[in-house]
Amino acid sequence: MSFENEPICALATTNGVGAIAVIRASGKDAINLVNPFFSKDLTTQKSHTIHFGVLSDSNGKAIDEVLISIFEQGKSFTGEESVEISCHGSNFIQQEILNVLTSSGFRLAEPGEFTKRAFMNGKLDLSQAEAVADLIASQSKQAHEIALKQLRGTFSSQLKELREKLIHFASLIELELDFSEEDVEFADRTQLKKLVADVLKMVNRLAESFKLGNALKNGVPVAIVGAPNTGKSTLLNQLLGENRAIVSNIAGTTRDVIEETLNIDGILFRLIDTAGIREGAEEIEAMGIERSFEKIEQASIVLCLADASNQSSIDEVKNWQAELEQKYTDKKILLVANKIDLDWRINEEHSISAKNGIGIDSLKQKLVDLVVGSFDIQNETIVSNARHYEALIKSAEALEKVSIDLENGTTGDFIALDIRAAMRSLGNITGEIEIDRDILGTIFERFCIGK
Amino acid sequence: MSFENEPICALATTNGVGAIAVIRASGKDAINLVNPFFSKDLTTQKSHTIHFGVLSDSNGKAIDEVLISIFEQGKSFTGEESVEISCHGSNFIQQEILNVLTSSGFRLAEPGEFTKRAFMNGKLDLSQAEAVADLIASQSKQAHEIALKQLRGTFSSQLKELREKLIHFASLIELELDFSEEDVEFADRTQLKKLVADVLKMVNRLAESFKLGNALKNGVPVAIVGAPNTGKSTLLNQLLGENRAIVSNIAGTTRDVIEETLNIDGILFRLIDTAGIREGAEEIEAMGIERSFEKIEQASIVLCLADASNQSSIDEVKNWQAELEQKYTDKKILLVANKIDLDWRINEEHSISAKNGIGIDSLKQKLVDLVVGSFDIQNETIVSNARHYEALIKSAEALEKVSIDLENGTTGDFIALDIRAAMRSLGNITGEIEIDRDILGTIFERFCIGK
Repeated sequence: MSFENEPICALATTNGVGAIAVIRASGKDAINLVNPFFSKDLTTQKSHTIHFGVLSDSNGKAIDEVLISIFEQGKSFTGEESVEISCHGSNFIQQEILNVLTSSGFRLAEPGEFTKRAFMNGKLDLSQAEAVADLIASQSKQAHEIALKQLRGTFSSQLKELREKLIHFASLIELELDFSEEDVEFADRTQLKKLVADVLKMVNRLAESFKLGNALKNGVPVAIVGAPNTGKSTLLNQLLGENRAIVSNIAGTTRDVIEETLNIDGILFRLIDTAGIREGAEEIEAMGIERSFEKIEQASIVLCLADASNQSSIDEVKNWQAELEQKYTDKKILLVANKIDLDWRINEEHSISAKNGIGIDSLKQKLVDLVVGSFDIQNETIVSNARHYEALIKSAEALEKVSIDLENGTTGDFIALDIRAAMRSLGNITGEIEIDRDILGTIFERFCIGK
Repeated sequence: MSFENEPICALATTNGVGAIAVIRASGKDAINLVNPFFSKDLTTQKSHTIHFGVLSDSNGKAIDEVLISIFEQGKSFTGEESVEISCHGSNFIQQEILNVLTSSGFRLAEPGEFTKRAFMNGKLDLSQAEAVADLIASQSKQAHEIALKQLRGTFSSQLKELREKLIHFASLIELELDFSEEDVEFADRTQLKKLVADVLKMVNRLAESFKLGNALKNGVPVAIVGAPNTGKSTLLNQLLGENRAIVSNIAGTTRDVIEETLNIDGILFRLIDTAGIREGAEEIEAMGIERSFEKIEQASIVLCLADASNQSSIDEVKNWQAELEQKYTDKKILLVANKIDLDWRINEEHSISAKNGIGIDSLKQKLVDLVVGSFDIQNETIVSNARHYEALIKSAEALEKVSIDLENGTTGDFIALDIRAAMRSLGNITGEIEIDRDILGTIFERFCIGK
């Protein structure tokens, strides 16, 4: 895997004015290239040291008092010689420093280029590199945990284990092929079947977890629908109440983004088009549902609110629930009987009083259970990347074939082909096998600049 | 000057999601306090070193892979033991790390508190500390340069020089007082007069520079007014044309802020309410000017556009210019004769063709000259802080009194009082004399959090 370590630079912190900003530079001779502009000789310094001084432009005019951190080749995030410049956070200074760098041998980095280099230089495997972008984008505890585990290599080592099992299998089969003239059977077919079944089970479990992983990563869309006066707004407020604080200590960070977002046990639920549901209730009134279908389309969980003090409301919503369950087999449709403060005789599975906060906790627990299913988020690997999911599915398909081949007593050479296909798919995830340049491009272009 | 170095922490980079974010922690035992949450022992490490590892919460659950930089007491920005945590830039991670810190002995820092501590611990004088905020906020080359010079102590050392001269003066006067019984005159009055005159001249020059400094710091408001069809929009476009690029390499940074802002020779000109001038031209038509006065009120330079191909337009605008000059003695009112492409016979001072770009460069030069006046921005100290300006004015007033006292042969004890007042005012700028807590509060509260 050859790779030119052309020097690159970028602003690594968020755009905008802050107390400080960090500019990152990496590549061949990075320290030497920065050195002439700094008031102190960096070339004689040790890796992982920090130096205070003045950074000047090519005319020797001071730009800022900065802290420069240096990293030797092989010891940095990218694996290349690297420099981090921590400057005062004005746009002007950031730009001036980038100007100095780009006019002295660095070029502006593409999105994800630092992480791409970390991958190219073997500092991270591909799934770990992808986890970097997920980690940065993570908005909830669970999404964050999945990404961090992936970055720290839990998924990678699991894949490695699976691949090792398959390599062992393949070597047995291929040994047979070498002696095929002699019609011997080195590999115990029963053991082989068990091995493939085991690996297949694990691969399938990982693939299954993607639905959960994707939900945790992107948030779980929930629609609350119901006739007017069933208490949708009250339920919304009860749900939103105390659960939005997770990022609220940093003023203004997420107001635009997670407005109407609910964090339960570290899982992000996105309440779809709730304003519309609140205001445009008349549309739903007839339960003709035509237009509210649009909202339901986007949701993976639908809460159908009924008025518990009104039997015809309950019946109506039950019909509606049945209708929706038929139409959308992949969505969870819940009947929620509200207003049990008015009539406590109703005994539906989810009976609540949105007004008095009764039953809200168990409704939240239900939402969490629906998302998490049988998975153990803390201890199981949850796949959250669509590319990994596809690779797992392909691998599972190949393993299914192997399974059938073994059942049918197919000859070793066919089995070997399929087992190699399964291994290739798994290898694609971590990038152990040569990855197409275009695919690499697609993976890294979704990163932010400076990472 | 006593000061408790209670441990504080804050996000030091801009709010929002970036490749990386930096959290800064400072105060007594900062390294010890962070140490239990890090995967490596920081307490045995040298100052100014960087450490890669995992930062966990109080339950031992990993939050992120981070780089931690440590700074010994006396060697950091604040002068206190300090830690900088460079983490992946998700809001979630930033918040989690702040949670860990705030639940283990740190409190969230107030705006400017790090810089305030740098001042309290003698790492910066007060005018240097104030320069930090200006440096971060600087949007143009010139504003940046003034702030950087101030941070680097140019202004401080100049003030020190002035104060030393005054101390010398005071000591001579006070020596006289000690021997007042004997009616001796140690100090040569002629020399004293010259000394005070010199200092006063320098103080006045610094005070005068504030108008320029303030303009450079906040931008110079310019109104372009004129009857319809005199070419206001064309002039605007010509002026804006290629001059907005200074921060444009960082996508999206300043669009909202410097829309309709013009950077000439590193000086920021703010074009006032140009949309209004462009669209609402009919208001100006009668030159009754009532409503355009509002725009003119805000401007420090007014460009009055006349149609050079129409003598009555020129005459009208000349009358108008005279009227404005009378009304606003502190504003610069320029007549600009446009459309000399249609009629080249006009010979006004500022004749241009906005359409063909003729005379634009010299108009720009004129704008710069109007702002800079007789000051040498490169080599002279320009005061840009209102607090400093007030202190200089007070100092000048006291020095004027000294001058008069000397002229009148007033006794030394009165002179000494005034000379002390002048010194106190100058000392206020750098904080050499004890500064009121409230004043300190006001100075630092305009900082951003994390600085």
